[in-house]
Amino acid sequence: MAGTDTARPSPEAPAVVLVGPQLGENIGMVARAMLNCRLGDLRLVRPRDGWPSESAAAAAAGALSVIEGARLFDNTGEAVADLQLLFAATARSRHMTKETMTPRRAAANMRDFAARGGRAGVLLGPEAKGLSNDDVALADAVLSVPLNPDFCSLNLAMAVLVVGYEWYLAGERDPGPRLAMPKPSRPATKDEMRGLFEHLERELDACGFLRLEEKRPVTVRNLRNIFQRAGLTDQEVRTLRGVIAGLASGRGG
Amino acid sequence: MAGTDTARPSPEAPAVVLVGPQLGENIGMVARAMLNCRLGDLRLVRPRDGWPSESAAAAAAGALSVIEGARLFDNTGEAVADLQLLFAATARSRHMTKETMTPRRAAANMRDFAARGGRAGVLLGPEAKGLSNDDVALADAVLSVPLNPDFCSLNLAMAVLVVGYEWYLAGERDPGPRLAMPKPSRPATKDEMRGLFEHLERELDACGFLRLEEKRPVTVRNLRNIFQRAGLTDQEVRTLRGVIAGLASGRGG
Repeated sequence: MAGTDTARPSPEAPAVVLVGPQLGENIGMVARAMLNCRLGDLRLVRPRDGWPSESAAAAAAGALSVIEGARLFDNTGEAVADLQLLFAATARSRHMTKETMTPRRAAANMRDFAARGGRAGVLLGPEAKGLSNDDVALADAVLSVPLNPDFCSLNLAMAVLVVGYEWYLAGERDPGPRLAMPKPSRPATKDEMRGLFEHLERELDACGFLRLEEKRPVTVRNLRNIFQRAGLTDQEVRTLRGVIAGLASGRGG
Repeated sequence: MAGTDTARPSPEAPAVVLVGPQLGENIGMVARAMLNCRLGDLRLVRPRDGWPSESAAAAAAGALSVIEGARLFDNTGEAVADLQLLFAATARSRHMTKETMTPRRAAANMRDFAARGGRAGVLLGPEAKGLSNDDVALADAVLSVPLNPDFCSLNLAMAVLVVGYEWYLAGERDPGPRLAMPKPSRPATKDEMRGLFEHLERELDACGFLRLEEKRPVTVRNLRNIFQRAGLTDQEVRTLRGVIAGLASGRGG
């Protein structure tokens, strides 16, 4: 589940500016989505139910640092005053001459921008209504998530998650912190594989499974391919040899 | 906000299998995340609060077709029986020799797989606990979202959204018609795999290989992982069952 509240946001990460958010719970879920992506700068413009909000803190699921650090503003202009690159997240198309970008392209832009010392942010409107045209006008570009055109219904936290996820991945030079594959044992050597194959084929000869001389080479090759493909460890080879011996044990005994 | 309920999921999209989901609201939000990405095949294994669920329908925000089409199962094995490529979404690393993939790589794999006529799915565990090791063992690979290592706390709908979003984009990149691949044999279904496992385990019980009660679960899981990893075809499953029957044939006879 959660992490700890010491998880540090990145100082380079974009700000998330929520204009007129309605439910505290949604603000909390935005904070949770943000910290998953190392975003920490949350700004609220006139949240409907006031601030601070207990339901926001409850829904943040451990991302309390984001909630506690959130800043309150009277209007959108003040909230974005220090930002130098601003994206307006909208679901519907707007009759405005403004470039529209996917989260992936916006993320690349924000990373470039931050690398040159700039501050970027993303603006999101109230749950049902979205941003006003005046707020969209403050932005450098419109950010639109390219999903199902017949059902485009992301809530605030989901929209923030997609933006944050793309921002996070754009900074990963390699594919990111991977889960280390625990290797208590090493990959089997070809010699160990040969031992396994010969053991299996010996027993299959003994029980008559390979008795059709003309089919034998194909069957043997198919079986070898199966086990080759599985990328066995030395331990697994020992287990399989145990299985073969076990299965064959009763025969002739 | 919403779309209409005529928004069509893609028949090629992966199934989403929720094991033991607790809150109806979370199931609803999963459905909403799914339809945004044109996913429509929702399967529920023993939802805690029963099914159908009013809170699920309310939280689906218009994705009612997904909720109404959801299918109910008694256990995970049945829920994934017809799938041929299965990813287990986990937050924590597991001590299993199983490949870990990012959603982006998994999406590319699922697209390729669907283009060859295969059925893929993603398995997710209960909200707080995640998947059991036995459920993870059913999967071909582990799916892990590469986000903030110090605060990894995606809820069910968020995890589904990231997977669905990558799946959707993976199809956008290459929207053209695909050449049909020749199919000498098809990937085994999970049900065929279960048949193979149960056959093997039955014979291993009979010969005493699994007699140490405390070691049995680990050995069984290790063996399942080996064959899972091999990516077997239906023909290969039949061959292996012939091998098991052959090896065991002499016993008691």
